Amino acid sequence: MLEPPYLLYLGGAADTIAAKTARGLAVWRPEQCIGQVRTDPAGISVGLPDLTMDEAAAAGARTLVIGVANAGGIMAERTVADVLLALDAGLDVASGLHQRLADQPAIRDRAAALGRHLWDVREPPPGLKVGTGVPRAGKRLLTVGTDCSVGKMYTTLAIEREMRTRGMSCDFRATGQTGILISGAGMPIDAVVSDFISGAVEQLSPARDDDGWDLIEGQGSLFHPSYAGVSLGLLHGAQPDALVLCHEHGRERMRHMTHHRVPPLADCLQRNLEAARLTNPDVIAVGVALNTSGLDERTARDACTEVEIALDLPCADPVRHGVGAIVDRWAVCFGR
Amino acid sequence: MLEPPYLLYLGGAADTIAAKTARGLAVWRPEQCIGQVRTDPAGISVGLPDLTMDEAAAAGARTLVIGVANAGGIMAERTVADVLLALDAGLDVASGLHQRLADQPAIRDRAAALGRHLWDVREPPPGLKVGTGVPRAGKRLLTVGTDCSVGKMYTTLAIEREMRTRGMSCDFRATGQTGILISGAGMPIDAVVSDFISGAVEQLSPARDDDGWDLIEGQGSLFHPSYAGVSLGLLHGAQPDALVLCHEHGRERMRHMTHHRVPPLADCLQRNLEAARLTNPDVIAVGVALNTSGLDERTARDACTEVEIALDLPCADPVRHGVGAIVDRWAVCFGR
Repeated sequence: MLEPPYLLYLGGAADTIAAKTARGLAVWRPEQCIGQVRTDPAGISVGLPDLTMDEAAAAGARTLVIGVANAGGIMAERTVADVLLALDAGLDVASGLHQRLADQPAIRDRAAALGRHLWDVREPPPGLKVGTGVPRAGKRLLTVGTDCSVGKMYTTLAIEREMRTRGMSCDFRATGQTGILISGAGMPIDAVVSDFISGAVEQLSPARDDDGWDLIEGQGSLFHPSYAGVSLGLLHGAQPDALVLCHEHGRERMRHMTHHRVPPLADCLQRNLEAARLTNPDVIAVGVALNTSGLDERTARDACTEVEIALDLPCADPVRHGVGAIVDRWAVCFGR
Repeated sequence: MLEPPYLLYLGGAADTIAAKTARGLAVWRPEQCIGQVRTDPAGISVGLPDLTMDEAAAAGARTLVIGVANAGGIMAERTVADVLLALDAGLDVASGLHQRLADQPAIRDRAAALGRHLWDVREPPPGLKVGTGVPRAGKRLLTVGTDCSVGKMYTTLAIEREMRTRGMSCDFRATGQTGILISGAGMPIDAVVSDFISGAVEQLSPARDDDGWDLIEGQGSLFHPSYAGVSLGLLHGAQPDALVLCHEHGRERMRHMTHHRVPPLADCLQRNLEAARLTNPDVIAVGVALNTSGLDERTARDACTEVEIALDLPCADPVRHGVGAIVDRWAVCFGR
């Protein structure tokens, strides 16, 4: 699929959330990222050298990745112009925006003329099937959340890294555009036709008998009034053996929602376990990942301890503390 | 949208499930159906006169409705040929198959040349938005099910008829292709991109302040491993004030599933109420619709009584007994 090394396009992004995709790649695939392109020198940086398209191509870059999201997923005119420059310089281009590269006539025609590849990672594969719910071989861990944007992707990738460090065979299975760009494959689950949500996850994470685990990136929350359908279909399709609950400390209202409170952790975990039992009656929880970025070190530790006592599960901030405690519990529960 | 009177296309359908859409129209909109077209004279009939396309057009028919579903929703070659005959005879054509009329070049070109309309009712409207979960004005009733194909559409339409007979203002809101063809409008919820499930239902059933009720057709089941995501998004988008639980007596396995049992009625109702409270904390159940078609009269009555005692809700078979008892309970609960 995507060919590294990557050049990350930040455009004029002014904050880290707008540059979330580029940041994800820079954090998780630093060895594959050789530079960044900013249209505003005072804009956000992900800490890579600023390169022009030609400099990047000369340095060996293969693919320009549109690493910036904006309201509505629209492709700005300036972005279109810069994509054309990248194609001219010899790069393929990848994007996770709702608005597709292939739907921009100028981009499509230039890419065709030059023989470059365009990767619209938010485009589901053709021929998806409805889910079957038939138990399949292999073991799977799924991250679930109290809300959107609480750290499910980061946690899943951190667990992959930790397990691999311990010599275990496992694979991150991406379900969102940033995760897909990081791992080079995956299923853009929020872009799938609703009849096929669970079937798409069955396809993303097929039966495996090599003793390895699939680590599936969760999306949304069963308690989010916009996206809970996606979360439930994903949960059923994943047939998870293990759940890790993700939460941001102190968040009281659901993202972009003024009418909806973030659910209590215990209720959220209980509801996810109940729903998951439909396709895997043996599912268990193995830990809680707590985003404590707003807290000082001591308060963060106390917050995790409080959750550990309340839920009787290991709790850690993957960024601050790593996920060793969660993987320890997983190893004990599954005899690894 | 669709223009009656309709001519119902049954093709070579050999059983009533294949002809489910035609049957729904013949039962619920008999005054709009003037004939049927069968390619196999021994095939299923919905009790209408057999007409040719030309005879139907001469009798005033405006639209040929593809009233037959087949595996995969594929349009057979014979069907394509018959659609062309209908266009030639002066009819518009409507279809709820996955495979769209407009994607068949022969059909598309002929319709364009003759100025006929093609209605692919499984095509969602453009510009859908993600759900907001913001409480909206008006009252809504939603049918939910233990499984697919247990009578949710029939029950919802029966409640509409019963309420209107009592002089109440209410509107059936269709979410599946048969319901859309019956009511002439609606939202094909299983064809919507998963990000927009709840938003699509918010659009289908917008705020109303005329004291009337929206009666929303449910889909699937929270316990169906293929479709639960659709059911949950629909439930959240509907913000129902009242639920009616639908079930087929004696069904033990989920439709098309050998690994999944139909849930106990009480568990199913409880789980639906819990989930519905996310967007309407005041939701209540007002009755159970029990499909007893396999039972004799006495056993059917006993089965309903058993459910009434177990769930403390009125229970009736909408086909056998009507939905008067359910609407009675609804009227008491909502002071109508």
